[in-house]
Amino acid sequence: MTDNRATLRARLDAAVGSAQVLTAESDVLPYVTDWRGRFHGRALAVVRPGSTDEVADVVRICAELRVPIVAQGGNTGQCGGATPDAEGNAIVLSLARMNRVRAVDPDNATLTAEAGVPLAAVQQAAADSGLLFPLSLAAEGSCTIGGNLSTNAGGTAVLRFGNARELVLGIEVVLADGRIWNGLRGLRKDNTGYDLKQLFIGAEGTLGIVTAAVLKLYPAPRARVTALAAVPDVASSVRLLRDLRAALGDRVTGFELMSALSMAIARKHHPGSPDPCPGHPWYALIQADDTLVDSPLPAQVELALGAALESGVALDATIAQSVEQAHTLWALRENIAEAQRREGPNIKHDISLPVSAIPRFVDEARDALSAALPGIRFVTFGHLGDGNLHYNLAGPEGTDQGAFMANARQANRIVHDLVAAHGGSISAEHGIGQLKREELTRYKSATEMDLMRKVKAALDPAGVLNPGKVL
Amino acid sequence: MTDNRATLRARLDAAVGSAQVLTAESDVLPYVTDWRGRFHGRALAVVRPGSTDEVADVVRICAELRVPIVAQGGNTGQCGGATPDAEGNAIVLSLARMNRVRAVDPDNATLTAEAGVPLAAVQQAAADSGLLFPLSLAAEGSCTIGGNLSTNAGGTAVLRFGNARELVLGIEVVLADGRIWNGLRGLRKDNTGYDLKQLFIGAEGTLGIVTAAVLKLYPAPRARVTALAAVPDVASSVRLLRDLRAALGDRVTGFELMSALSMAIARKHHPGSPDPCPGHPWYALIQADDTLVDSPLPAQVELALGAALESGVALDATIAQSVEQAHTLWALRENIAEAQRREGPNIKHDISLPVSAIPRFVDEARDALSAALPGIRFVTFGHLGDGNLHYNLAGPEGTDQGAFMANARQANRIVHDLVAAHGGSISAEHGIGQLKREELTRYKSATEMDLMRKVKAALDPAGVLNPGKVL
Repeated sequence: MTDNRATLRARLDAAVGSAQVLTAESDVLPYVTDWRGRFHGRALAVVRPGSTDEVADVVRICAELRVPIVAQGGNTGQCGGATPDAEGNAIVLSLARMNRVRAVDPDNATLTAEAGVPLAAVQQAAADSGLLFPLSLAAEGSCTIGGNLSTNAGGTAVLRFGNARELVLGIEVVLADGRIWNGLRGLRKDNTGYDLKQLFIGAEGTLGIVTAAVLKLYPAPRARVTALAAVPDVASSVRLLRDLRAALGDRVTGFELMSALSMAIARKHHPGSPDPCPGHPWYALIQADDTLVDSPLPAQVELALGAALESGVALDATIAQSVEQAHTLWALRENIAEAQRREGPNIKHDISLPVSAIPRFVDEARDALSAALPGIRFVTFGHLGDGNLHYNLAGPEGTDQGAFMANARQANRIVHDLVAAHGGSISAEHGIGQLKREELTRYKSATEMDLMRKVKAALDPAGVLNPGKVL
Repeated sequence: MTDNRATLRARLDAAVGSAQVLTAESDVLPYVTDWRGRFHGRALAVVRPGSTDEVADVVRICAELRVPIVAQGGNTGQCGGATPDAEGNAIVLSLARMNRVRAVDPDNATLTAEAGVPLAAVQQAAADSGLLFPLSLAAEGSCTIGGNLSTNAGGTAVLRFGNARELVLGIEVVLADGRIWNGLRGLRKDNTGYDLKQLFIGAEGTLGIVTAAVLKLYPAPRARVTALAAVPDVASSVRLLRDLRAALGDRVTGFELMSALSMAIARKHHPGSPDPCPGHPWYALIQADDTLVDSPLPAQVELALGAALESGVALDATIAQSVEQAHTLWALRENIAEAQRREGPNIKHDISLPVSAIPRFVDEARDALSAALPGIRFVTFGHLGDGNLHYNLAGPEGTDQGAFMANARQANRIVHDLVAAHGGSISAEHGIGQLKREELTRYKSATEMDLMRKVKAALDPAGVLNPGKVL
């Protein structure tokens, strides 16, 4: 073992330079603890290659020595997918140094970025060419595009633009045996055989390591309208979404649902936050964008919300009159996660359902959970337009929130069983990682699990890529 | 062998009823000849199951008896992917009887259709709910949604909506061993493991048989503008596309390029066709759609085209003033294929390139082909917005067009080598089938071919599904 480690170290040093092979505990620590602080692993080393060839060298070395490889981008995952286990036999392969935007092609509306480019830098490079890269999520300052693709990230613009998967034309991947597959095609139509890139997107580093990607860019929006509407119940929020899409079409780029309690918690921990439409049980945060010159969008949004107020679908509404006001409205939504953290632990669920099933799910889950855990509080919010709820549960007011976490297993079972019954997903956008492996086998059919294992065995027969994750 | 056939026949009869097992030569013939009349195969039988369970039964029987299965939808493929080989050992499995729209869910903006539903019927069912299913292509009256997914069909709305792959949320598949994988999820976000549906979409029936799908619907357009612009060269058409997208954003849903010769042939064989902007070398057919109530789109298109005329990017332009005029303009484009057929055989290429590379490709290909085959004529048209050209070659005027086809191999090599040099694809939207298998191995890297073979071996180890296609 010691010999093996010495061999590994010497070969890694030769491959990427010893300065890029971190082994001191303090150097390694940030890479073996996940962002939420739930998972603490160990690693033989953190290896930071600077090029695709170096990644390939590192993977080849590890494959030969049977050393597990945990690929890591910005380490902002929610499910421990980029954190090694406690055995300490793996290396963390950080893509952070591969941070070049290789090309921007405005005529083709594409951008080629290495895996370690932060999402915000991709957005900026697109904007510098007058175009839009629409993927947007809370961690965009520190997460990387490689991690976004490996987890098929979602975020706030999925309603209009789809998940990360839909924003990719081609990828470059280092395979489990160290070969490089150059699939960096910038083509909008390419039907030459199986679409292999789809295997690696969303596979959380278990089938290959994404080192670069050709991304789709879009016309930049010229008009943006942000509004908040109060609604009497969840069914009305679904109706409002449908009515707005009927009136505004696909100009509706975001539609976020928030319960009154979610917003109250956000306001409590972020003093100075406004309370624009007070006194209602549910709120919808609406964003509409238009790429058209001289867009009539603002007037149209006003008309559509007016109609919703008249029909009783909405009870109150406000439209941001400035960019600053728009930010304030979005802050109400974006502050919920941080406010929750300060409020005390929550039993969290990142679920999705057919949009049409959400009202019944919310009712049924409330009844079942209230019966099982009297006094339980519902911190429900999320991307309703995508059917994605962050369905989080807090203990009864005034009780020990930490102690309430002991109910997690029971609550998860109630929530996930109902999600499954409604044809939903137990992980809408955060992935599986190590957090939800057990749940996955519970809710996936035996056939689907078998297919996944066959794919894994075909692409990583020795099991060196991120073992213990997803499958 | 005879025993085996009798066993097969008896078991198929029991599985689907003898009326749905066709063996008489005249009954079988339409299923074993491809739409273009290029491929003529033979089959033990044509089997027409009426349900997913029956498909599973048929596949299980064939898997046990090692009988190859060629799945077929509307039999409108361009590459012989649904035509069995001449050995006559295979069955054709027709999905035509599985033609139910199982559900439309307007709140979720989804539609669930069985594989055999014709594309036009899917479009109609969406329209009946006030929504849009955007996939649109020439064969839409007879092709089926199952075939569209199995070939990842493209068509005329890819610029805005993507290929068939991007219009699918979930699928149901019968696997090579006859198991059914129910992946019919109607979720816009679902990150629970590998996205297995991606394997079957575009695999041309070689990895599984798609029996149903949950499709995405979109807000229906309310304003539609169709225009024709004459441009001095291909580079100007790329510039016009970029300028229009800058002005109109993603309202630009179609952008078709046509050479003067393509349009002249279309007019020659379709008497009464207009010649709206006569005397120019290249034309762009532009479609813009808006889902917004009271859209200012028509005025904006006029402004944008006015600017293009002023800057010299366009030389002439006309905007359809009625739905009828719009159809007339589209007919100029749509009639090219049929007119070509009447004009005599062509050496055809369905290629794609980065949009930015198209002007250079067109120049270089013209020079190389003219040098190799003096007098050759270029019938160039296609979906420029997607980088997809139907790059077809006709023999010198007045010569025997049939004899010219003897140059196909030489011309293909010149065209495909140049496509590869520019990072393009030798099959943009028509797939591989049996037509382009040899070309595929020439242009794909050994690594990519190896990955595809590994996937095939993992999912269809006995090789019963559509052998001799794609790989």
